[in-house]
Amino acid sequence: MTTTDTSAQVQRDAEGRLRHLITLEGLSRDEMIALLDLAQFYVRSPGDLPARDQSLAGHTVANLFFEPSTRTRVSFELAAQRLGADVVNLDMQSSSRVKGETVLDTIYTLQAMLADVLVMRDAEPGLPAYVARYVAPHVCILNAGEAHLSHPTQGLLDALTVRQAKGDFSKLKILIAGDISHSRVARSAWQAFSTLGVEELRIAAPEDLMPGANEFAGATRFTNIDQAIADVDVVMALRIQRERMSGAQIPDEVSYHRSFGITADRLAKARPGAIVMHPGPMNRDVEIASNVADGPQSVIQQQVTNGVAVRMAVLATIARNVQARRHFQ
Amino acid sequence: MTTTDTSAQVQRDAEGRLRHLITLEGLSRDEMIALLDLAQFYVRSPGDLPARDQSLAGHTVANLFFEPSTRTRVSFELAAQRLGADVVNLDMQSSSRVKGETVLDTIYTLQAMLADVLVMRDAEPGLPAYVARYVAPHVCILNAGEAHLSHPTQGLLDALTVRQAKGDFSKLKILIAGDISHSRVARSAWQAFSTLGVEELRIAAPEDLMPGANEFAGATRFTNIDQAIADVDVVMALRIQRERMSGAQIPDEVSYHRSFGITADRLAKARPGAIVMHPGPMNRDVEIASNVADGPQSVIQQQVTNGVAVRMAVLATIARNVQARRHFQ
Amino acid sequence: MTTTDTSAQVQRDAEGRLRHLITLEGLSRDEMIALLDLAQFYVRSPGDLPARDQSLAGHTVANLFFEPSTRTRVSFELAAQRLGADVVNLDMQSSSRVKGETVLDTIYTLQAMLADVLVMRDAEPGLPAYVARYVAPHVCILNAGEAHLSHPTQGLLDALTVRQAKGDFSKLKILIAGDISHSRVARSAWQAFSTLGVEELRIAAPEDLMPGANEFAGATRFTNIDQAIADVDVVMALRIQRERMSGAQIPDEVSYHRSFGITADRLAKARPGAIVMHPGPMNRDVEIASNVADGPQSVIQQQVTNGVAVRMAVLATIARNVQARRHFQ
Repeated sequence: MTTTDTSAQVQRDAEGRLRHLITLEGLSRDEMIALLDLAQFYVRSPGDLPARDQSLAGHTVANLFFEPSTRTRVSFELAAQRLGADVVNLDMQSSSRVKGETVLDTIYTLQAMLADVLVMRDAEPGLPAYVARYVAPHVCILNAGEAHLSHPTQGLLDALTVRQAKGDFSKLKILIAGDISHSRVARSAWQAFSTLGVEELRIAAPEDLMPGANEFAGATRFTNIDQAIADVDVVMALRIQRERMSGAQIPDEVSYHRSFGITADRLAKARPGAIVMHPGPMNRDVEIASNVADGPQSVIQQQVTNGVAVRMAVLATIARNVQARRHFQ
Repeated sequence: MTTTDTSAQVQRDAEGRLRHLITLEGLSRDEMIALLDLAQFYVRSPGDLPARDQSLAGHTVANLFFEPSTRTRVSFELAAQRLGADVVNLDMQSSSRVKGETVLDTIYTLQAMLADVLVMRDAEPGLPAYVARYVAPHVCILNAGEAHLSHPTQGLLDALTVRQAKGDFSKLKILIAGDISHSRVARSAWQAFSTLGVEELRIAAPEDLMPGANEFAGATRFTNIDQAIADVDVVMALRIQRERMSGAQIPDEVSYHRSFGITADRLAKARPGAIVMHPGPMNRDVEIASNVADGPQSVIQQQVTNGVAVRMAVLATIARNVQARRHFQ
Repeated sequence: MTTTDTSAQVQRDAEGRLRHLITLEGLSRDEMIALLDLAQFYVRSPGDLPARDQSLAGHTVANLFFEPSTRTRVSFELAAQRLGADVVNLDMQSSSRVKGETVLDTIYTLQAMLADVLVMRDAEPGLPAYVARYVAPHVCILNAGEAHLSHPTQGLLDALTVRQAKGDFSKLKILIAGDISHSRVARSAWQAFSTLGVEELRIAAPEDLMPGANEFAGATRFTNIDQAIADVDVVMALRIQRERMSGAQIPDEVSYHRSFGITADRLAKARPGAIVMHPGPMNRDVEIASNVADGPQSVIQQQVTNGVAVRMAVLATIARNVQARRHFQ
């Protein structure tokens, strides 16, 4: 399946409206701003009751996680519940694959049960766009994480978090640091920040974890984290997996922390008031120092709160677009 | 537990109303028609929002799947949610058996928590009828698949699908083809179609997968699929499991497809406009050719849609019967 | 983590209201009576629809079970649903630990998603009180079973069951029998009955399963079950695990039953009308004879019914206390 080049087209209907959300590629600045504005409308502070409306009343959301992720599944589940949807969870590791059912047959089955929003996560590339080509007109595919390629709601929640803390994107220097080459979080963040128009986007990675030259157009590349972090407004640390370190000739977690971790000393080189982000779950004292993660410049928990709000905004927008199509057909 | 001969009695209350649904055996034609009519009332087309009412408001449905089946569990779960019930899922592989709790104690526990509809699936025969003898008067057992014996909601959804496509049962020749001997789907379909009164019911299987002579009364038996399919209005293919093939001296899936698969060539021998059914999940190009499964005569996705509607009809009927008993006691 | 000595303090807010429920230690008699009265208000008989209100509307309950327990998870899930809460289940065996996320990061994540009641069960001691120190002011921790130490909702449901059957606690002799040393059920029951003021609390265990002398203050100790059971009003049998028997020089389940099981003969030595309790799941004919478990003196199923009611009462009380804090801040 080599479908990623067309995910941007596949996710739109004949009138150009967003029908699925598979990638942030091709979204206009106005579209992103509209999603961020609606998400902001759904944000509540800890201690307040969550926002809640009936935008998805009567709709059925199915979570299909071929790759396990409790955090992201719960975030989508709560977003859907708070919009009044019915939600079913399918653990795709254990169940349908047992009987050798093809993914497309699973999708057709859910569609025939009148599930109309399918949230998918998969370790392989291509499934969301592939499936989106075959589903009925009223069914929406939401990409909840696809290989190293795309995690669009994460990109949006990162953008929302930056906007809340820093306002105007055009004045900002943003650093994404870590295992860029394997990171869907980095790719979706790059798409969001490029489209929203930041002053400078930097990526910093050990040489072996740097993406190919044809990717991350417009970003400044660093292999030295101390140079990369200088004077930035936003530092986004990425999760590093132990098996990636050895591929990058890094012997262990301590070495990684020493050469690439976001520490208090390094953070001091960023602009005063710079914020620190991480998509979670964190390896504390590996890609990020524990005292930085819990420190005053960290907005990591705010990212989680924004994640539910962004997913509510995406669900509500997609459902509204489906209804618009229905009324004009 | 040798209880199947009495499942038909156990599922009725003192006034003869359906209290559980364990088997289609013993249901009258009028009872089946009433269930199909109510199910039809709940059917919606893909693209419409699902039917929804409050027939089960205040009730609690527990899904107890001792044999895994994501499709059937989700179908019951959505049916119950759309009728306003609370739903809990118990994965019986991993949980209560860990501590050696007896099934009956699990049932008593759920009943004491005021769960009043227990949906059960098990690979062994006898559990639903056994449990039905012990539960309190307000608790209903729904059989969601029992060994090779019974899958009553599948039989009803198959009947509903045939009625939608073909109308009057009395003019129809229906073929069920494949591993009849191990199939609960075939047994429940035979019960439904016999009671509804089809012109001819045919079963076709390799010799070693043909049921005993005392079963499937009234059905015409074939071991040659090409003869069996001639002039039928409905072809229902059954799932074949690889381990059954070797028992039937069939070396592999290719051989099975060649000798017993429903192919376009074979389908051409049926009546024009014959429909093709499959209970899912399919082994594509084994018991059914992929192009037949996706072809214009296939009603396989309609079966899935009808499955939710039939389960809503059964849940609503059972709940109404419980309430009727309550008011007259 | 050695936090159990302070669980009683940690669970109260600055005004002394219950903010979490981690232990029954330190609860006053009036507090317990208020919880039992509210639980009684939520009790319904089998055959009636469950009690239901909107005390938790808008709230989100997350079930975090680090130790599996389908019964207790379903009991909390139904209690929360029947009070109008949104509920999410996290299977902590399989999911977040996969990626090495710390428990505290999981808690912070759920809190940032605006989950405000976290129901936790763990085989190790200390986690609920540890977590309670770090959560935001609006988040409540409910202990659903902690090592051998604490199971507060079980203690309350046991007290409620005794009160329903016997009324005035001050006249009662209560026996808890079995593996006292490893039992959180016994410890929470002891706290409840001590606070409510029973005439005599007896504990009976094989010598090697007797708790240390500094525990169970005020209880009379027996190693002979036949002496212990004489003239009691309540017999509470505890679950015995096979691996504990060998530690106690008991060769097998038959021997355990002979020397410590609650049999009809032994029960005849208790007061006429004595009730028999068990927290479930039972090992039938090990710690309790099957005919006693199902006999006329058994209130084991009533305990399960009371379990949901007690959890509703705890959830509603905790939520009301959160709201009280909010209004006066």
